[in-house]
Amino acid sequence: MKFADRLNNVETSAIRELFKLLGKPGIISFAGGFPDSAMFDVAGIEAATERVLRDEPGAALQYGATEGYQPLREQLSAFMASKGAQDVAPEQLIVTTGSQQALDLLGKTMINPGDRVIVEGPTFLATIQCFRLYGAEVISAPIDSDGVKPDELERLIVEHQPRLVYLIPTFGNPSGATLSLERRRKILELAVKHQVLVVEDDPYGDLYFADAPPPSLLALTPTVPGSREWLAHCGSLSKVLCPGLRIGWLIGHPDLLARATMCKQFSDAHTSTFAQATAAQYLRSGVMPQTLARVRAVYAERARAMGDALRSELGDAVEFVQPQGGLFMWVRLTGARGQERDANALAKRAIEQGVAFVPGSPFFSQNPDPSTLRLSFATADIDRIREGIARLKKALAA
Amino acid sequence: MKFADRLNNVETSAIRELFKLLGKPGIISFAGGFPDSAMFDVAGIEAATERVLRDEPGAALQYGATEGYQPLREQLSAFMASKGAQDVAPEQLIVTTGSQQALDLLGKTMINPGDRVIVEGPTFLATIQCFRLYGAEVISAPIDSDGVKPDELERLIVEHQPRLVYLIPTFGNPSGATLSLERRRKILELAVKHQVLVVEDDPYGDLYFADAPPPSLLALTPTVPGSREWLAHCGSLSKVLCPGLRIGWLIGHPDLLARATMCKQFSDAHTSTFAQATAAQYLRSGVMPQTLARVRAVYAERARAMGDALRSELGDAVEFVQPQGGLFMWVRLTGARGQERDANALAKRAIEQGVAFVPGSPFFSQNPDPSTLRLSFATADIDRIREGIARLKKALAA
Repeated sequence: MKFADRLNNVETSAIRELFKLLGKPGIISFAGGFPDSAMFDVAGIEAATERVLRDEPGAALQYGATEGYQPLREQLSAFMASKGAQDVAPEQLIVTTGSQQALDLLGKTMINPGDRVIVEGPTFLATIQCFRLYGAEVISAPIDSDGVKPDELERLIVEHQPRLVYLIPTFGNPSGATLSLERRRKILELAVKHQVLVVEDDPYGDLYFADAPPPSLLALTPTVPGSREWLAHCGSLSKVLCPGLRIGWLIGHPDLLARATMCKQFSDAHTSTFAQATAAQYLRSGVMPQTLARVRAVYAERARAMGDALRSELGDAVEFVQPQGGLFMWVRLTGARGQERDANALAKRAIEQGVAFVPGSPFFSQNPDPSTLRLSFATADIDRIREGIARLKKALAA
Repeated sequence: MKFADRLNNVETSAIRELFKLLGKPGIISFAGGFPDSAMFDVAGIEAATERVLRDEPGAALQYGATEGYQPLREQLSAFMASKGAQDVAPEQLIVTTGSQQALDLLGKTMINPGDRVIVEGPTFLATIQCFRLYGAEVISAPIDSDGVKPDELERLIVEHQPRLVYLIPTFGNPSGATLSLERRRKILELAVKHQVLVVEDDPYGDLYFADAPPPSLLALTPTVPGSREWLAHCGSLSKVLCPGLRIGWLIGHPDLLARATMCKQFSDAHTSTFAQATAAQYLRSGVMPQTLARVRAVYAERARAMGDALRSELGDAVEFVQPQGGLFMWVRLTGARGQERDANALAKRAIEQGVAFVPGSPFFSQNPDPSTLRLSFATADIDRIREGIARLKKALAA
């Protein structure tokens, strides 16, 4: 059987090989990109499904509008307002099957084979692959602990004339970095100046540990004239409520949304109305602020424990910026005193010691840095985090 | 903003215009393609969600495997066995977000821009548009009341060398037609002879009114050596349980499934685990046979009532084959005694009289037959069906 040429643009073996190893018994995994299922508000979700099946079973189990279930669009509009984006009407967002689908719809709507897109180096792996499936050449823009560097980004925009620029400005995956307020304004100015679509993927922005991060690019658009037209924003309930409902959303210019909706019609018709109605009832119940507070407190404690353990156990073998939110710690092997500086080699020895992480290289669309690795502090409790880092120390010494 | 060229291949205005009219108060609609929400087994679904949230909340609300939630794959394997496809192991199917996503994944996996695909004329509208978004040229193969004509299909296969042939062999949408057993065997032989993928879309096969239809192409593959490799089968719970869970599945050769899974990973990561777990619990509870029996009885009665009303009210103005299952009646305006034979013109007058249907033309990828129309008998009760057909008579006379 012959398959479509677009499949040749994608390479998934690096991660696949790694995940095969995760089945090893007793392993402590810092490799996942998911939230801790022990923290899901099961009782709250159960109450929501009961209300759905009592009050609106016909609508919630039937086909629904491709744009999304109207009560959920209204709740998401209010949720965005609570996060500083005051002016997103329900009609200005569409519900997607997880924010992964928002990325897919952006690819389908925007990208011709051969088009260039710019992402952060490093960025979310599935974004790179998703855009490559539409034939994109994925260009990598350098970042530091304040996120993408606007001057470098502008140089790349001018050079490559990209179809879009994709950023995770807040608690980035895998970098953990947060774009500074000053840089956020500059990015919006660049979008207007160069008439290029900037995609803000924001699954982690609610997961801050102490102070709230700077406002989202979306929330800042009113301060940069003309920028709203050039911004698309992807939201998700996966990291703050649970991934299993697959509820994401896409906010953008009406012309973009109309076309993304048309593409969605032929992708999956609509997102599960049952899941949408459940999410809407959950949001309407008003418990989300407590849920967020609980999740933030737990992840903050784990991030602190992991940072402390890394500093005390691994010392000068690693360097990292202590994350202020999100799920991830981005670590660089320094190679100090002749210690290992290749994260792929370390990953294999780590598995032997019973601890897993993802090497950083696959997160780069270009110019991978083999000394980097991503640790998730989300799913292991504090004792397991300490034990896991102790095992990492043994792997480093092995 | 500039959008991707693939969007230029799709035209959705015909249906969009029509559906705008459906909001008119008091209208009796035979236009929908959906099941009757009054027949959803709400209590059964509620019991399933309760079990899910009691027994497996962590897994059901977490990220899941792209291939599908394993307990659901096992239940769907058993469900297929109960329908005559005995040898579909859980690993030989992947769960999709409705069967619409199975079509999308087939498009993404198989179709290069400029490739040809063959469909029935008429066929499911969203299939045509879905494949066109991947750049396919969609060729139409003629059908009669026994489904697609194998000789004509073979001629078109030889002429166009298509990437795939898409069929709805059982109670087709919109045709209501069912491919005869003899033709089913011939289609499988053609697939092997010409090494062409045949896609069997089967959302309606369980909705038979009296005798069961011939076995699915999938169930017949053991009788035609080599044919299993060239068959893909799309299943769905949307018409038999409810659409709102968005549970479909794709069965095919391992090479095809592996690539479709990779595409799905970057389309929506996975189908809602919560919806999948709910469907799995529902199927495991063993009530599906009763649910199907109830749905079949109601639709059978409505199909009979609509057929009777059409014959008695419209007489020689129409001709149609009484459907033996599914949701749809495919009607041709004869133009006898100078009566209307343009379904578009009739659709507008019908709306004025308070009844809606879909004209047949948009269901043809080529050579539309303007005298055809599709009536759904699924969602109106018998009194409304009789009243609706009486209104159609007035529209015809107007």
